[in-house]
Amino acid sequence: MQANEALKNFLDNGDAIFQNVSIDCVIFGFHQNQLKVLVLTFKNTDKRSLPGGFVFRDEGINDAAQRILQERTGLHDIYLEQFCTFGQADRAISKVHRDTMQAIGIELPDDHWVLGRFLSVGYYALVDFSKVVLTTGILDEDYHWYDIHRVPPLILDHNHITRKALETLRLMLDYKLIGFNLLPEMFTMSELQALYETILDKKLLRANFQRKMLSLEILERVDKKWTGGAHKAPYLYRFDPRRAAAFLERE
Amino acid sequence: MQANEALKNFLDNGDAIFQNVSIDCVIFGFHQNQLKVLVLTFKNTDKRSLPGGFVFRDEGINDAAQRILQERTGLHDIYLEQFCTFGQADRAISKVHRDTMQAIGIELPDDHWVLGRFLSVGYYALVDFSKVVLTTGILDEDYHWYDIHRVPPLILDHNHITRKALETLRLMLDYKLIGFNLLPEMFTMSELQALYETILDKKLLRANFQRKMLSLEILERVDKKWTGGAHKAPYLYRFDPRRAAAFLERE
Repeated sequence: MQANEALKNFLDNGDAIFQNVSIDCVIFGFHQNQLKVLVLTFKNTDKRSLPGGFVFRDEGINDAAQRILQERTGLHDIYLEQFCTFGQADRAISKVHRDTMQAIGIELPDDHWVLGRFLSVGYYALVDFSKVVLTTGILDEDYHWYDIHRVPPLILDHNHITRKALETLRLMLDYKLIGFNLLPEMFTMSELQALYETILDKKLLRANFQRKMLSLEILERVDKKWTGGAHKAPYLYRFDPRRAAAFLERE
Repeated sequence: MQANEALKNFLDNGDAIFQNVSIDCVIFGFHQNQLKVLVLTFKNTDKRSLPGGFVFRDEGINDAAQRILQERTGLHDIYLEQFCTFGQADRAISKVHRDTMQAIGIELPDDHWVLGRFLSVGYYALVDFSKVVLTTGILDEDYHWYDIHRVPPLILDHNHITRKALETLRLMLDYKLIGFNLLPEMFTMSELQALYETILDKKLLRANFQRKMLSLEILERVDKKWTGGAHKAPYLYRFDPRRAAAFLERE
């Protein structure tokens, strides 16, 4: 009930909001060789959506995206990029919002600001899966990580937004060397290769991949991984952002 | 005076507009080995800006961008891509608009919709310079093509928007093979190389460039260019969009 009060206050206070604009976030994580996307489920419904939110009147859109992601994941300094803005003429969330509000006992008048046409600015985020501590919002009951190949039907154009984010991630993987944001601090070469193979959705030749990665001179070899076994232990690597910046500068 | 009437009617009719959102277009053309950008000057002022406009309430943002570009350049089927949305908290065009309107004798009340905060969706367009027929809008007096290295100070964040568009063009040049949109239908290999060198702002080795371009198998060799001279005439090429699509599919 406390949450509902907070929501009502928020909805009544439309003047504090930069109206007609929302933020939607495609949060990617990598776990057990799967590329995952964070999806929320609204309370008392089977409606699912990307995490998102509104922009305050005195807040820039990039700041709003950072705030929303921090609130949801508990993480600061998230790798975050704007990738596309979605603004079809009929992009109103009225039907969805009326239903999700009704499901928690709130009735909205027809001319309420939240029921109008919304343009959504899409951001994708890359997080270290192991560090995320999820927090639910006032409307949503639960969060799940879904394999990118098994994302369920989402509200509005959120499935389309998710596909667009994946396209951008694939393109930027080499161009900006951003994949490392999805890994823990130290990783083996085969973990790195599995990440690339999963994102690109294709097999890569082991020797070629290793040669290419080492030739970039952006990895620091740390130590051998202790496996306890008799066979050869793999090296551990750490991504060096300074060297990566220098590499991208040279390109 | 007729134009002013049209403008007044437009400004009074805020309900027809999807408010808080505008479109800004970075229109690139290639001429005499220079990459050029189209810039407009507002009537009776020295204020310059990118061509842009508003979105109608029943119009998608991509459709609005197409419409605005058609109105300005006279071209249909323009190569057009959304690249970034600009939404700083203090991004209000009030000061600029008050001045440009005053310059043509229109006073706006403080709470007029056009004076509020605006989020701008940025698009870049690639046009065949030789085919453009420029049309001025109701606010702007004149258009000029500026070399990308000599763009004058523009209103608001329009210089920043221009730089972002150039960054995206450079990135997409290879990834989407879009450079051909800047050339006439037939061109020589050295014209194509000059285009790439200008966009990337660096010299390329002639033999390497030619080998790489031909290896993509996206060019159709048409005929020798008649130069009238005794020396060897260069081949003319035509870009084959079907083969390019097949190439990008394979990649």
